[in-house]
Amino acid sequence: MTAILTDTLVPSYLSGQWTSPAEGARAKDVLDASTGEVAARVSAEGLDIAGAVDYARTVGQANLRELTIHERAGIIKQLAMHLNDNKDELYRLAAKAGATARDNGVDVDGGISTMFVFSSKARRELPNSTVIVDGNTEVLSRDGSFLGTHVYTTMTGAAVQINAFNFPVWGMLEKFAPAFIAGMPTVVKPATPTGYISQACVRLMLDSGLLPEGSLQIISGSAHDLLDHLDYRDHVAFTGSAQTAATLRSHEAVQQRGLRFTAEADSLNAAILGEDAAPGTPEFDLYVKAVFNEVTSKAGQKCTAVRRAIVPAAHAQAVAEALATRLNEKVVAGDPRAEGTTMGPLVSVDQAQDVAEATQKLIDAGGQVITGGPEHADGAFFAPTVLLFDDADTDAAHSVEAFGPVVSVLGYQDTEDAVRLAARGEGSLVASVVTHDNEIAARIGLGIASHHGRLHFLDRDDAKTSTGHGSPLPHLVHGGPGRAGGGEELGGVRAIKHYMQRTALQGTPNHLTAVTGQWHRGADVQRVTRTEVEAGTAEHPFRKDGATLRLGDQFASDPREVTMQEILDFAETTGDKFYAHVDQEAAQANPFFPDRVAHGYLLVSWGAGLFVEPAPGPVLANYGLENLRFTQPVTAGDTVRIELTAKRITPRVTDDYAEVVWDAAILNQDDELVATYDVLTLNEKVNTTYANWDK
Amino acid sequence: MTAILTDTLVPSYLSGQWTSPAEGARAKDVLDASTGEVAARVSAEGLDIAGAVDYARTVGQANLRELTIHERAGIIKQLAMHLNDNKDELYRLAAKAGATARDNGVDVDGGISTMFVFSSKARRELPNSTVIVDGNTEVLSRDGSFLGTHVYTTMTGAAVQINAFNFPVWGMLEKFAPAFIAGMPTVVKPATPTGYISQACVRLMLDSGLLPEGSLQIISGSAHDLLDHLDYRDHVAFTGSAQTAATLRSHEAVQQRGLRFTAEADSLNAAILGEDAAPGTPEFDLYVKAVFNEVTSKAGQKCTAVRRAIVPAAHAQAVAEALATRLNEKVVAGDPRAEGTTMGPLVSVDQAQDVAEATQKLIDAGGQVITGGPEHADGAFFAPTVLLFDDADTDAAHSVEAFGPVVSVLGYQDTEDAVRLAARGEGSLVASVVTHDNEIAARIGLGIASHHGRLHFLDRDDAKTSTGHGSPLPHLVHGGPGRAGGGEELGGVRAIKHYMQRTALQGTPNHLTAVTGQWHRGADVQRVTRTEVEAGTAEHPFRKDGATLRLGDQFASDPREVTMQEILDFAETTGDKFYAHVDQEAAQANPFFPDRVAHGYLLVSWGAGLFVEPAPGPVLANYGLENLRFTQPVTAGDTVRIELTAKRITPRVTDDYAEVVWDAAILNQDDELVATYDVLTLNEKVNTTYANWDK
Repeated sequence: MTAILTDTLVPSYLSGQWTSPAEGARAKDVLDASTGEVAARVSAEGLDIAGAVDYARTVGQANLRELTIHERAGIIKQLAMHLNDNKDELYRLAAKAGATARDNGVDVDGGISTMFVFSSKARRELPNSTVIVDGNTEVLSRDGSFLGTHVYTTMTGAAVQINAFNFPVWGMLEKFAPAFIAGMPTVVKPATPTGYISQACVRLMLDSGLLPEGSLQIISGSAHDLLDHLDYRDHVAFTGSAQTAATLRSHEAVQQRGLRFTAEADSLNAAILGEDAAPGTPEFDLYVKAVFNEVTSKAGQKCTAVRRAIVPAAHAQAVAEALATRLNEKVVAGDPRAEGTTMGPLVSVDQAQDVAEATQKLIDAGGQVITGGPEHADGAFFAPTVLLFDDADTDAAHSVEAFGPVVSVLGYQDTEDAVRLAARGEGSLVASVVTHDNEIAARIGLGIASHHGRLHFLDRDDAKTSTGHGSPLPHLVHGGPGRAGGGEELGGVRAIKHYMQRTALQGTPNHLTAVTGQWHRGADVQRVTRTEVEAGTAEHPFRKDGATLRLGDQFASDPREVTMQEILDFAETTGDKFYAHVDQEAAQANPFFPDRVAHGYLLVSWGAGLFVEPAPGPVLANYGLENLRFTQPVTAGDTVRIELTAKRITPRVTDDYAEVVWDAAILNQDDELVATYDVLTLNEKVNTTYANWDK
Repeated sequence: MTAILTDTLVPSYLSGQWTSPAEGARAKDVLDASTGEVAARVSAEGLDIAGAVDYARTVGQANLRELTIHERAGIIKQLAMHLNDNKDELYRLAAKAGATARDNGVDVDGGISTMFVFSSKARRELPNSTVIVDGNTEVLSRDGSFLGTHVYTTMTGAAVQINAFNFPVWGMLEKFAPAFIAGMPTVVKPATPTGYISQACVRLMLDSGLLPEGSLQIISGSAHDLLDHLDYRDHVAFTGSAQTAATLRSHEAVQQRGLRFTAEADSLNAAILGEDAAPGTPEFDLYVKAVFNEVTSKAGQKCTAVRRAIVPAAHAQAVAEALATRLNEKVVAGDPRAEGTTMGPLVSVDQAQDVAEATQKLIDAGGQVITGGPEHADGAFFAPTVLLFDDADTDAAHSVEAFGPVVSVLGYQDTEDAVRLAARGEGSLVASVVTHDNEIAARIGLGIASHHGRLHFLDRDDAKTSTGHGSPLPHLVHGGPGRAGGGEELGGVRAIKHYMQRTALQGTPNHLTAVTGQWHRGADVQRVTRTEVEAGTAEHPFRKDGATLRLGDQFASDPREVTMQEILDFAETTGDKFYAHVDQEAAQANPFFPDRVAHGYLLVSWGAGLFVEPAPGPVLANYGLENLRFTQPVTAGDTVRIELTAKRITPRVTDDYAEVVWDAAILNQDDELVATYDVLTLNEKVNTTYANWDK
């Protein structure tokens, strides 16, 4: 069932079906940015928005709850591959909205690659479960019978996204992927000027057959009552203007009903040229090139675009002129479908008028036009404009945003002044700092970090590899304080946690093990000893496969006595003759050691010798250790033994292995802990679905 | 300079001095809860609030910025000790507000111990610096020249706290300590009914002489224009009613200016009795005792108090009766200064009237009075009240809050029904789950976690050690979604980060090293080799003390060849005869190994042998390892070498040691990484302030 596109109403997908308002509904025409022809008609009049929210909370939630985080992440990867195979349709549509091939690289390909990154990071960094443990266990009683920890679990409502016009694909996918992996169904409300592109992308995803029913809906058109139906179970992620953000934030759903609301708004982002980067240095040229890119990419219609070029006062004129020269040489404005076009029109004539007005304000406040200017506007086309301010403290330069290809050049006196000027933006998404001087990088970086969501440092060493000022990466947080909306998106698995609730848990080790699906020290164990294993009366946990291994399966080794000769031999064979192991007098002078002590590395090596099951079996490799701490010295005459307990089991959905984390505790003859660590093994799945490994 | 207390206006401390409104200002009388006498008079009329905010942002910020996180944490510890020595004055004052000795244990002693915990956790878990690195480094380019990471830096404004009347000391200190450690100056606005107790506590802290100027101010009285002066640089932490939270949240500072606002509001917290816990089980008795404590502690005036007892329907009558019996036997209500009093009055007659009204609403909606009831109210005293509902779905039971010693008993049908009923609170601070059945703990826990900020599990095994349902711990987050305000406080170092901004950094390894104060792989190194060290032409980094060790100091070892005999010998001496090391045929059948491989433990043991400097020096002990990963197999005939680089240096303010984290990279003959890890050492400070170790 495929929706009908363009020339007619853009349909919505709600409550499991494509739907459109009845004949005669008032609709809005959306025009092709270059030709002025009608590209689409949009209306959501009379659609059942309350029903869609309820559908997400019931059908969508129930279907996503059936899947683990890894399973959901696997679907996101398949969806990304499907979109990648079908992206030409999106390119073709996006051209109507003024997007060039380079712009599509950012929006369409950027959106798809964001899905790949989230899918991969979720499977590598999160458990294959529905609950994420946050941080360390807190031992809240001396005897270990009362513990604390934190978990993230999925919010029980709908993830609503209200998007800006400039990234109809990326803006949707970068929110959808983490919400989906977190287990929240999404309702998309795209911006009207480019909503037909988002709708086409949703249709591609639905047609793939990969999506669980109810996990993705789209409202094509205005839905003024959307927030009326939301409460504390739901999440709204908004991208757009600060003014719309404020209006939404004042809705009673946010004020009174605890709706979780996060905003990402345009800001007056700065690019700062370091004092070291005079004309003639590689950094000066890189700076001009970076600002050029930000002015022209998507014709400056990016919330991350550079609006303020903050440069040493002595070089302000040179920067402005170099920018103007490059713009005049390189920009070919036109219909993106025409050969040779490097910059498209703004998304609409209205938008071009807004930009012209804002630019005029900047000029009236003292901005000297070095190139461009509002008088060159033609329909939706706006000429790249460089303004140079004599007074870097001009209020308008720090508060008036022209959401197009316009940049203000401002001179600073010294690094401290540059920091002060950058902060005058009152909160920004991103700033670039272009310097090859580490001291300047540190002073500017630490000076402006708290006013920014992201800082991008550029010099000759990362010029070739940098992903650029304007590109939020799925790995790093996107958003910023103050004018930038105060929200936070992306940031790897942080993005997924934004769709979950963090909850503290207190209870016994058994309670916490049951709820988290992770064994906690002190919880029940199924203990087997070396003697039992050798007698054949019990199975070593290393011999258990996915069908039989359980949290709490524990192997208790025999004890082994440590002799001085063994310590000295270990020093000899490894070469580790640190005085604390071989020189009695020096060891005794050390504040931590009673005498010559066994190497920590000897203890963990012996530990493996004590717990290992030598014959081939499900455990394929010990690929690492975590959290190793030596807690008591061990000297000759002490004996050590080890307890190894299955702590966390992460079966892989897409390959043949499972990761198992084993709690290792090395104890001495007085049952005191002398070393504690986590042993990481890769285990074969061995003909089982491992279904019972999920809590 | 000590403020004058009681019988006259409670002074404010603003912009560096104690101040009060001029003669003739309108003031509010605060009465002793038991006797009705005037306990204090309060007014903030005409005080310069804008000046106080500015003072925090300038003087307070500048002074706190001079200190590292550990130095600030050290001051918090000293302040806690000072308050502990002077707490009798606070006890005496709190009695006027109805606090019993037990209540003071929660408020005054609880506040002081919260400071100790924050101080200790900040010094153990955070760097001795002004910037906190968050999460792992992201390698954003194939060649490692472009990296990403995240940092927290201090917000540049004021930390304003607006508190509830019920915890004048704890409520202030639990917010003050993390803000101070984060480097934000605090402005306290206590609740009028108990603000004189907060003021006395502030005075004690100021008189200690420990506080940097501008780091703590207090407004005694209403300051209606406070938010008018705040913006995105500032942070408001509010505790109180949901209605006041909504009013503050609608202020234009929050809506338009990006003021960071967090609320913690009363909620209808549940205590759920598991289906396993029938009368006669230890859990049944523990449940009754726990609910009893929550009803009577602070006379039920706690935002965490149990309002809804959700129990198996079959046991609802038994629970209600057991509770009533215990209340009738154990509660001695009266003036807390009188001998034998176990429960004080509510804080005021007004408050008692509010509770009576709410209780009547619950009765009118179907609550059957098992004991107590509004007709027993006497002045500020309110009798402990148990209400039993026939219909557990009665709306009022899930929405009407009597902020006093009142609890509703509600019967559920099965565990799923209990989960559903608990969620009807629409977001709560905390729920208790009393069960000795792990399966029930998991089903209820995972079912209700996303509606709660904290879950407290109780059974026979943690009955003696549990800190109880009602006590937020500094280690665990406090706050909750929906009705509970949507905020988050406490939670160990999470609380400190709430006063900081998270910012993504992108740049070269050198840029990131400079900004974070942590060496990043690929950044510049000061490299010395074994040959140079032995020739005496360079110093091994292990021989450098606090005066000379620098980030990036690197030791490069000689190579060492691995032989099969050494692998077999290592297997023999450690006992680790895992087939992959000793059985050629079996090793070759393993999917990861080309042949018999060297033990990972052999590699790290040899690693130490290769990098170690044997003679006594500043490095005292290798106390642990982190993030060990074996990335390539090593077989006989390979050679290995190690590069060890100073990555993070954490000098301890209060003791003689510094922690140094060394990046360890073991490479093979083809310069491929075969193992990577962090080595943790304790180093002597050696007669230096280590001032230069701070970035």
